[in-house]
Amino acid sequence: MSPRADAGERRARILLSRVCEPGDADACRLVRAHSAAALVERLAAGTLPSAKAQDWAERLPTADVDAMLRAAEHEAARYIVPGDADWPACLGDLEVFEEETGERRAGAPFGLWVRGHGDLSALSTHAVAVVGARAATAYGEHVAGDLAIGAAQGGFTVVSGGAYGIDVAAHRGALAADRPTVAVLAGGIDRMYPQGNKDVLRRITELGVVVAEAAPGCVPTKSRFLIRNRLIAALSLGTVVVEAALRSGSLNTARWARDLNRQVMGVPGPVTSRSSSGVHQLLRQPEAVLVTDAAEVIEQLSPAGTGLAAVKRGPVHIQDQLDLRSLQVLDAVPKHSGATTRSVAGVAGLTHTDVVQRLAELRDLGLVVVEEGRWRLP
Amino acid sequence: MSPRADAGERRARILLSRVCEPGDADACRLVRAHSAAALVERLAAGTLPSAKAQDWAERLPTADVDAMLRAAEHEAARYIVPGDADWPACLGDLEVFEEETGERRAGAPFGLWVRGHGDLSALSTHAVAVVGARAATAYGEHVAGDLAIGAAQGGFTVVSGGAYGIDVAAHRGALAADRPTVAVLAGGIDRMYPQGNKDVLRRITELGVVVAEAAPGCVPTKSRFLIRNRLIAALSLGTVVVEAALRSGSLNTARWARDLNRQVMGVPGPVTSRSSSGVHQLLRQPEAVLVTDAAEVIEQLSPAGTGLAAVKRGPVHIQDQLDLRSLQVLDAVPKHSGATTRSVAGVAGLTHTDVVQRLAELRDLGLVVVEEGRWRLP
Repeated sequence: MSPRADAGERRARILLSRVCEPGDADACRLVRAHSAAALVERLAAGTLPSAKAQDWAERLPTADVDAMLRAAEHEAARYIVPGDADWPACLGDLEVFEEETGERRAGAPFGLWVRGHGDLSALSTHAVAVVGARAATAYGEHVAGDLAIGAAQGGFTVVSGGAYGIDVAAHRGALAADRPTVAVLAGGIDRMYPQGNKDVLRRITELGVVVAEAAPGCVPTKSRFLIRNRLIAALSLGTVVVEAALRSGSLNTARWARDLNRQVMGVPGPVTSRSSSGVHQLLRQPEAVLVTDAAEVIEQLSPAGTGLAAVKRGPVHIQDQLDLRSLQVLDAVPKHSGATTRSVAGVAGLTHTDVVQRLAELRDLGLVVVEEGRWRLP
Repeated sequence: MSPRADAGERRARILLSRVCEPGDADACRLVRAHSAAALVERLAAGTLPSAKAQDWAERLPTADVDAMLRAAEHEAARYIVPGDADWPACLGDLEVFEEETGERRAGAPFGLWVRGHGDLSALSTHAVAVVGARAATAYGEHVAGDLAIGAAQGGFTVVSGGAYGIDVAAHRGALAADRPTVAVLAGGIDRMYPQGNKDVLRRITELGVVVAEAAPGCVPTKSRFLIRNRLIAALSLGTVVVEAALRSGSLNTARWARDLNRQVMGVPGPVTSRSSSGVHQLLRQPEAVLVTDAAEVIEQLSPAGTGLAAVKRGPVHIQDQLDLRSLQVLDAVPKHSGATTRSVAGVAGLTHTDVVQRLAELRDLGLVVVEEGRWRLP
């Protein structure tokens, strides 16, 4: 647990959230190693030799922390950093991943803009990411909504990216269940992107939170969407992909979930639907589990032995419980005209003694009737 | 390899195929241990003490081998036994399974009735079972047909149960590809069951074979369907289930495939479709592999490193090949009005040197253009 940051450190991180690209691995590492205040000081003094640092230094004067804070305040947004009460501890896994693999794809964030009444730390202890295609089908949106309602009612926070299609269907499902949900944006917290989901994003702030790593004013770019995906994966115990074409960004979120040791799940669809082809490729990987409803998602995310989903069995017929020999006897009993025990035994190819006993059992189960020593179906 | 059976032994097996229930584990074992001729002799002499043996003995006089042979001949069917040139060696795995597990569900068959021009032994060296629900949807029948066409064109024999729905769609697919297919019936070889598939079953005999373990005249009962399923699984390298409700018999075939160390595959469908719910439950088991087309089935059934299916990738965009930083640079280039290298570097948050190099690469890829030192999208 990091110590609580003072006001100077907090302002320095806000400054850097504008000067550096969100998730920039070098920036994230330097802030962790030296504190943002020290980094800003060294940038300003020009004592960091790298070309990248020089570039950041050049941009320092253009970043106006007070203007960013005013923009955030206008949206009732705040900036949280590691050490704050509502900072989600699970994001630390991004740091662990970076250290263990040496991969420089993206760093653990050094701060986040959040907007809404929810406590991101509490919300992310039991969260599931439900993500998928923007160009979703009615089937995908229906399933995503159902999954989200069930997961939310089961006590899980639904995390997604606020985008059109599957994302917003998932958020709407959680809202329909009157439960908090978390939207992680690729651009600034003051840009409720996409515009068409503005109302849903506003409603999310009532119980949940909208989150952004980029500074206020930042536009959502393609690279920022990809970088953003690691936060969706890290904030959840698992990621469910509902509809994804072969190159869907949601598969990138699933990869992050796998890399961070989260559960990876997918909802199948028709193999004739392009919108499901990416999910099917995902489900051919050993780490991914096929899920068909919220109960199976919850089972996957619950500690071993808890949250078990009932195995789907369909309607139970007494016949299905019979062993093969009793089934043979039942098969040998005629529908209309009665047959003697001897004749049933003959047709069934079983011994007389065996058949006598099994016919009595079948009669007790109501599967056969006997009249004047002749057996028939009821 | 068993020695070739003489005429007496063959007649004894035909006799037993009528007297004993198809696949009866005790009968199969006794025939293997003593020969059918010896077993019939002992049954007739009454020297076998078990109640079951007494029952078989009682039925001996009612079985007319010559009548059965005449019925078979009328249908151009023949009886094959282990040791015959066209006896499929793979059925020996049923014996191995029985010996290794001690399970008495069903034995390895001691003979089969076959009808058609195909050589069952040759056909079963490269075979795939395509099975599924009788009450299939148009989606399921379409996919089963496509799979069967592709598998057949890929050199695989399609094995199925000749039933309505998925089974017959699979047989029809193989026939459409002008390739042999194998139908394994639950009743006698003289009963082309179900009636509605009579024409397809006839066409199967032209290049392939129709197979039955039960004696001519036997009706297909529920227990015989379940027993029959082990032959479908054993005759193939793997079983693909296309549509199955939660209690579909095709899941029983998949279990046999698993028990016999065959590949178990399933084709997903909408989670909202009851006809796919059994397949989805199957695909949640670790042994089952999700497949979406014939290429993936063939890959699964081919020796490691051969028959590889192309991983589905969708259309390739040059942008998707870029690393994250080049993508950042591309994101920073304006659409219409040109921007200086310095301005692009500022927006991208990268160093001038880095951006100069990346812009040149992007230009070479045709993703950006430069005019009088100003960069824009083409």
